[in-house]
Amino acid sequence: MKNFLLSAFFLFFSFNIMSQEAIWDSPDLKSPEINADNSVIFRLYAPNATDVKITGNWMEAEGWSPGTVDLTKDDKGIWIYESDPLNSDLYSYSFLVDGVRVNDPSNVFVVRDVNTLSNIFIIEGKLGDLYSVNDVPQGTVTYRWYFSKGNDKDRRITVYTPPNYEQSNKSYPVLYLLHGMGGDEEAWSSLGRAAQILDNLISRGDAEPMIVVMPNGNVAQQAAPGKSQEGLVQPSMSLPNTMDGKREKTFIDVIEFIEENYRVKQSASKRAIAGLSMGGFHSLHISRIYPKTFDYVGLFSAAVFPDESVDSEVYNNFEGALMQQMENGYELYYIAMGKEDFLYDQCVELRSIMDSIGMSYIYNESDGGHTWSNWRVYLSEFVPMLFK
Amino acid sequence: MKNFLLSAFFLFFSFNIMSQEAIWDSPDLKSPEINADNSVIFRLYAPNATDVKITGNWMEAEGWSPGTVDLTKDDKGIWIYESDPLNSDLYSYSFLVDGVRVNDPSNVFVVRDVNTLSNIFIIEGKLGDLYSVNDVPQGTVTYRWYFSKGNDKDRRITVYTPPNYEQSNKSYPVLYLLHGMGGDEEAWSSLGRAAQILDNLISRGDAEPMIVVMPNGNVAQQAAPGKSQEGLVQPSMSLPNTMDGKREKTFIDVIEFIEENYRVKQSASKRAIAGLSMGGFHSLHISRIYPKTFDYVGLFSAAVFPDESVDSEVYNNFEGALMQQMENGYELYYIAMGKEDFLYDQCVELRSIMDSIGMSYIYNESDGGHTWSNWRVYLSEFVPMLFK
Repeated sequence: MKNFLLSAFFLFFSFNIMSQEAIWDSPDLKSPEINADNSVIFRLYAPNATDVKITGNWMEAEGWSPGTVDLTKDDKGIWIYESDPLNSDLYSYSFLVDGVRVNDPSNVFVVRDVNTLSNIFIIEGKLGDLYSVNDVPQGTVTYRWYFSKGNDKDRRITVYTPPNYEQSNKSYPVLYLLHGMGGDEEAWSSLGRAAQILDNLISRGDAEPMIVVMPNGNVAQQAAPGKSQEGLVQPSMSLPNTMDGKREKTFIDVIEFIEENYRVKQSASKRAIAGLSMGGFHSLHISRIYPKTFDYVGLFSAAVFPDESVDSEVYNNFEGALMQQMENGYELYYIAMGKEDFLYDQCVELRSIMDSIGMSYIYNESDGGHTWSNWRVYLSEFVPMLFK
Repeated sequence: MKNFLLSAFFLFFSFNIMSQEAIWDSPDLKSPEINADNSVIFRLYAPNATDVKITGNWMEAEGWSPGTVDLTKDDKGIWIYESDPLNSDLYSYSFLVDGVRVNDPSNVFVVRDVNTLSNIFIIEGKLGDLYSVNDVPQGTVTYRWYFSKGNDKDRRITVYTPPNYEQSNKSYPVLYLLHGMGGDEEAWSSLGRAAQILDNLISRGDAEPMIVVMPNGNVAQQAAPGKSQEGLVQPSMSLPNTMDGKREKTFIDVIEFIEENYRVKQSASKRAIAGLSMGGFHSLHISRIYPKTFDYVGLFSAAVFPDESVDSEVYNNFEGALMQQMENGYELYYIAMGKEDFLYDQCVELRSIMDSIGMSYIYNESDGGHTWSNWRVYLSEFVPMLFK
């Protein structure tokens, strides 16, 4: 009896999977399959579909979005596409089945970018390995809540603490790492692979052990979609108060929370702030209006100037505050921008202002545009320069 | 110039979204839409599809899996289905577009169960509110790594600490909460809504503030799929050493890690262990072979007996160890099982053994089978009985 029941237990699971396969009527497919030369085969079982395409972030853009390529159907109803060999990196893709955007049913790994889920895969090698979990000491990722006085609400925050933080008595430097418009406190830890990048750089001796603080920069929001009292509402780009000065003015709440709750070094030489797009805009202005607070600033594909409808003292005295920042002294001002980025001209204008007042910075101009592929690279380049 | 550039920044985002819509050629749909009577409308734009179905966990099962229902296409190419009014709960569903399993493109909220992603939604009310983020103090969820001596590897673990844990100096009781076959250290925090359930029960005064430890019970595995050195490999049910005694024997590593790293009360009266399915099996046997360690035991849809091929001293002396457990004393032995669960007969046999030796327990027999809907309810019933 006992043995019969237990066998039933194991049988159930095989049977259950078989049964699901029967329902979906789908063979056990491997997709994506990465070949030895780093070309990639994608497969989708869809015998009744008439048109299947794939869109992936390695494809030539068509307008603002990546292009699409047709898959070919074999005689078993499996649609197949094989890419050219790809460089080592993390990639995202989706299928289009008869016009409907579909995640690959053979790949459970997805990331959310604003209101879109995409599958991901990694090509091993230089960048791919940097974004992977390796046999190295792992830091801790914590999702917790704090009260923001300036915004009068409880807010969720992501904190990375480096390996051995819990066991040591040391104090650590802090990088405040800010997301872009449509992002939230989960963006850098999911799309940005921040924990993997830090674990790997620290274990190689390329970066100082540091705490990385990833707050939610949308001050109208408590937390990422689905993680707040708003419930399971679809994410939106159109949030109020994202670039009107309120974020910058209330950022002190984040710093105070971290410095009261973590073993951190509390001096400008041990604080960095960086962000992408809107988060670069926030980093630029926060580092201006909190003088002598951050000796390291990183702008990744940053917006620079507020919209003309915005009226906030935060954005006053732009050049004057930069000159003051220069006079106060700092260790590093890092600016990175893609050649095809739609914010490229803003970056040119910022650099021309900085040049005109003699303010030094490191400038990394990369290929490509406003993409996570670039932002992961910028982070990987920025972090090793910190706190040395 | 500045204003032009910034306007371009905002324009880009609206344009980008428009552009994506143009590519997908899909109107901005609301799906799922929950009506006032708790019926739910599902919508999918798929003008070129010939057959669209929905499968959801509220539907009558067909064999092991939920059934499917056809959607109806309107003259704009939008496929629509409206459910009957649903009870308050958390539900999961997927579409089938011309036979291909598809997540709802209008709903970014998905959960992974083994190798399948499904969309979720919540119907407000009794259970739905318990699984939601409410205006109450929120605990902290931490994903971190520890070294397991018994398994000779670094392993990932999820730890929930209750609101104010970080600010207080108190020590807390601990619930060890174990997942089932195919699960991992992320199962209870995602599918199980454990953090939300605890936050809500604690804030209502229905549960003691406690730490909830959610380890990975697959001892051959370091971490959840995608979170380990194995990389982005598809999850599988077929892992070695899941129910052969190794988990039970090496569980001491988890307890020691927690008691060395968290402010916890270190007595049997302040330790609970509970799990679902395979995790119930582990809870049963761990509580037997670690005498005087757990005064609270919870078996949710538990397997009870090892497979006949298994030869481990862990499973010897079954009745004798239960009698010893009874003699040592405990506060609560909670057993929950669904009427339609395929493990129902194992539960009958366990209860008959316990009855025959006079070992007391609380028994909750529910409707339904081997489902997360049941396990969330069992957790919500079990937790208020702990540490009183």
